[in-house]
Amino acid sequence: MSKEKKLVEEITSMDEDFAKWYTDIVKKAELMDYSAVRGCMVIEPYGYALWENIVSILDKKFKDLGHENVSMPLLIPESLLQKEKDHVEGFAPEVAWVTHGGSQKLQEPLCIRPTSETMFCDHFSKKIHSWRDLPKLYNQWCSVVRWEKTTRPFLRSLEFHWQEGHTAHETPEEAMSETKQMLEVYAKFCEEELAIPIIKGRKTESEKFSGAEVTYTIEALMHDGKALQSATSHYFGDKFAKAFDISFQNRNNEPEFVYQTSWGMTTRIIGGIIMVHGDDRGLVLPPAVAPVQVIIVPIALHKAGVKEKSEEIFNILKDVCRVKLDDSDKSPGWKFAQHEMRGVPLRLELGPRDIEKNQCVIVRRDNFEKVTASIDDLRNCIPEILKKVRNNMYAKAVDRRNHMTYEAKVKEEFYNFALNNPGFIKASWCGDEKCEKEIKDGTAFTSRCIVGKADISDKCVNCERKSKYDVYWAKAY
Amino acid sequence: MSKEKKLVEEITSMDEDFAKWYTDIVKKAELMDYSAVRGCMVIEPYGYALWENIVSILDKKFKDLGHENVSMPLLIPESLLQKEKDHVEGFAPEVAWVTHGGSQKLQEPLCIRPTSETMFCDHFSKKIHSWRDLPKLYNQWCSVVRWEKTTRPFLRSLEFHWQEGHTAHETPEEAMSETKQMLEVYAKFCEEELAIPIIKGRKTESEKFSGAEVTYTIEALMHDGKALQSATSHYFGDKFAKAFDISFQNRNNEPEFVYQTSWGMTTRIIGGIIMVHGDDRGLVLPPAVAPVQVIIVPIALHKAGVKEKSEEIFNILKDVCRVKLDDSDKSPGWKFAQHEMRGVPLRLELGPRDIEKNQCVIVRRDNFEKVTASIDDLRNCIPEILKKVRNNMYAKAVDRRNHMTYEAKVKEEFYNFALNNPGFIKASWCGDEKCEKEIKDGTAFTSRCIVGKADISDKCVNCERKSKYDVYWAKAY
Repeated sequence: MSKEKKLVEEITSMDEDFAKWYTDIVKKAELMDYSAVRGCMVIEPYGYALWENIVSILDKKFKDLGHENVSMPLLIPESLLQKEKDHVEGFAPEVAWVTHGGSQKLQEPLCIRPTSETMFCDHFSKKIHSWRDLPKLYNQWCSVVRWEKTTRPFLRSLEFHWQEGHTAHETPEEAMSETKQMLEVYAKFCEEELAIPIIKGRKTESEKFSGAEVTYTIEALMHDGKALQSATSHYFGDKFAKAFDISFQNRNNEPEFVYQTSWGMTTRIIGGIIMVHGDDRGLVLPPAVAPVQVIIVPIALHKAGVKEKSEEIFNILKDVCRVKLDDSDKSPGWKFAQHEMRGVPLRLELGPRDIEKNQCVIVRRDNFEKVTASIDDLRNCIPEILKKVRNNMYAKAVDRRNHMTYEAKVKEEFYNFALNNPGFIKASWCGDEKCEKEIKDGTAFTSRCIVGKADISDKCVNCERKSKYDVYWAKAY
Repeated sequence: MSKEKKLVEEITSMDEDFAKWYTDIVKKAELMDYSAVRGCMVIEPYGYALWENIVSILDKKFKDLGHENVSMPLLIPESLLQKEKDHVEGFAPEVAWVTHGGSQKLQEPLCIRPTSETMFCDHFSKKIHSWRDLPKLYNQWCSVVRWEKTTRPFLRSLEFHWQEGHTAHETPEEAMSETKQMLEVYAKFCEEELAIPIIKGRKTESEKFSGAEVTYTIEALMHDGKALQSATSHYFGDKFAKAFDISFQNRNNEPEFVYQTSWGMTTRIIGGIIMVHGDDRGLVLPPAVAPVQVIIVPIALHKAGVKEKSEEIFNILKDVCRVKLDDSDKSPGWKFAQHEMRGVPLRLELGPRDIEKNQCVIVRRDNFEKVTASIDDLRNCIPEILKKVRNNMYAKAVDRRNHMTYEAKVKEEFYNFALNNPGFIKASWCGDEKCEKEIKDGTAFTSRCIVGKADISDKCVNCERKSKYDVYWAKAY
């Protein structure tokens, strides 16, 4: 078992150095590797398979709601990026510029998309003429580039993968309902499939998307008490439509501007999965997206019948779950540690004595609970146990989140919590950006989202004037 | 029926102007739209759904053969691109350069990947140490940029989507066998799923991929007699491995360079589907990749029971094929023309009299054959008819290809065919690049592929010296 120990020891413990624990995991579980370009990563097979599972679930949800996938160009002319004033102010400082094509200098620089609102708007302006052309419910899976100064694998990178939904509607109500519907899709996906509890709310003016009228967000709490913005959904009203002249003949035969939304989730969520569920042994993956849900580890592989029985079990399970048989020549101990580190939800152990009894041992990654199961019952019990794993992971995460959420009624309480307790602080706020900024400057806590009308206190936690909203605050990734 | 006529009339006929026929189809069938960036297109929902079906079939084939998907960065540092001499010579003239990030000038320009050999090699050099790390069987779905001067939708664009497989092996034999295996995957996919007959062969030295030792290709013949290179598979030997220092400890504990391959298919193949199968009414899509395989068009939709029965049939078929019900308020004639133009393989018509007889009428897009089918039998007969559609499309394409393939034994014959008959010319060649160039300069026919040893004639069709190979020649896209 020395190898096993060594392997596990290689991961820095969370309490010792959370940031190092995180990078140890992404590297050692082979989710990603650094590349020759600063801030751009190679997503390795295990990391990419995780992303493919996320894509496949979300893509189905989007399509079931009538969205269609399209592909917009990677490059955006400078003049197009500049059409919507707030949008360009937000993004221009962080785009990459293509100035030469082949050996020629370009007449107009092109930026690599930091997001594709401008491209969708340009397309919409050509394709939408009548209310009969609406709604347009589009989505795109692609990568985008934002020239970040400091980068971290998955959490903040120059290039990242995402989906960006872009829709156009006849009425503000319909667009708003789409905005909220998509937030709900993300929320359910995080909670049900990823077992990540989230807080839903609205961004303040200073935190909203450049060009949006309203930005909704889901925020998750990481193991270290910092928040991760996990997906956003924006309502644009007709702001972009006016800038890009996307007008249509409405049902009264009058010209009107369309109402738009956009919404996105990124490879960042992989960082969220790691930091919500991981432990000192490594990754703990939610079954719904784990590339391997069950790893079969034979014990005494050389003994008669073990290999054959392992293969038989593999065949029994292969259309029930994502199963893999590890029949490599490494020791069982090494394999245990390796697959634990990679976060495989269930390990299925099988040795000569188990075979005699027509049984095997199933070990859960989330709580290390062992159960003995009859081989005849595997097709039923594995999906059941996977459900239990998800439920337990979710319950643990909710529990931790609740333990790390504090209510502050007055400024002293807020500062006290903020300086001593990592986590969410829930507090009432007057709505003034000045107070938001003072809190940020004083505590490094930013407003994560407005969750409703002021209920915690009728006074703003910062200035004691009348409060308007209850807000979640946290340090954030 | 005036609307129907008008709609059909809008497509230029093939014989009148093939290039215009092509662009009419891609625009009117809403496969793509032009964008604000020269040579970059918006792939619209119908075109993207076609690509998604191609992706999904190929992706499964790759994975079944043990390949894993990864993601490499979009940007490549200039110094990395320059590591393999032949590779950089081929690609440097056609790359887009990022020179500024945010507001800063970059110290080293980054190019947008024209292909990712250099990135994969850089990664391999870090990850491969021992024969135990081999083979690496990687694939990536992404878009790449090549700064082309003249562009055409799908056929040649600045940005295009593709997959690029990149593998590293212990022995030259294994790498060569992978190269050939992947060519076979593409060939089968084209023939079986896309109903496109192809010629398999090897590229001449002057036509091979920059940096490859051997390039294999599949070539298809379009309706206008021009060839389309439809996929390629390259054997690199250890050329890249030496340039990027990808060495491993072999089974004899000696250091050795790996042997590599790469292989790709692109959105170009959509152009191939259009130009092999299309006709003057528009697209004709192979069932395996058609976004809609069966369109239900109710007749007299307002009459009692028609809408309900149409929905019932939709429900009967929805898990058997990709079916859609067109219950819009357009006339049946308009719908017929519209879905024909969009190449839907089967139209299912259903009117009050059909309902009385518990039947419907199925019309094939490939040959306009009508059959009457019992509604009770639809789940069986639709898949059967779809198979017949594919078989007939393939047979027609093979037939046309054969009728447009000529054997030339002497120069006069070659020039005569080349100037008067669009299509393939099969002729023997000495292997000298000078002859290849003379043929190209004199006829605009390029060597498409070497298919075997000289058999047609023992003399080169150009210089009359001893011939070495039989080669397919054609004008090419």
